[in-house]
Amino acid sequence: MKVQKFSVEDANLVRSPGQDADIFVGNLVDERNGGPITIGYGRYAPNQSLTETMAVDDVMIVLDGRLVVSTSSGSVSAERGDIVYMPKGEAVTITTEGEGALTAYVTYPHWAEAHD
Amino acid sequence: MKVQKFSVEDANLVRSPGQDADIFVGNLVDERNGGPITIGYGRYAPNQSLTETMAVDDVMIVLDGRLVVSTSSGSVSAERGDIVYMPKGEAVTITTEGEGALTAYVTYPHWAEAHD
Repeated sequence: MKVQKFSVEDANLVRSPGQDADIFVGNLVDERNGGPITIGYGRYAPNQSLTETMAVDDVMIVLDGRLVVSTSSGSVSAERGDIVYMPKGEAVTITTEGEGALTAYVTYPHWAEAHD
Repeated sequence: MKVQKFSVEDANLVRSPGQDADIFVGNLVDERNGGPITIGYGRYAPNQSLTETMAVDDVMIVLDGRLVVSTSSGSVSAERGDIVYMPKGEAVTITTEGEGALTAYVTYPHWAEAHD
């Protein structure tokens, strides 16, 4: 595989699997590409919420807006330029308020395979 | 390990190992934390250059500024919000011009161990 550059316009954003919230994700690199990691962009509309137990180690980089990640042991608020690390096995609720959020994400291993 | 949030102010930025360019990196999560991935921030001064053969799969998210990643098969220019995926084994030269760049990075496996 070669070096690749992506912009959010390259991602085909679809509703996050298993959710009915206005949260959309698009993989740019995943199990179909032969490497070990998944890479993509996520777009969260304002006032949305997603609860999930992490099937993979997931790193989320906030590119715009703001979101809150809550667990049983507390909450963190992340804005542009912040990184949120969500280790495998953690139960998280990701929430947006009035401004929504744009994120980039990197997971190990591949999210889709871990969910199967 | 628990969910964690990081900002660039949390990173202890040191000169990128094996380089004398004004390129500084700071891991926030690495082999000392027990997970599979390394997470950190990088800061590139203007007009710097770094050449490296990737020891790991490395994903770089541009948070500010602009940089160019060149390989034997071409170059990509990345700016704020763009993602550059540099697969293991690729020989890359990362260059900044007048504005420098701030990046977040995620590697699998751990960069430090792969270099040893």
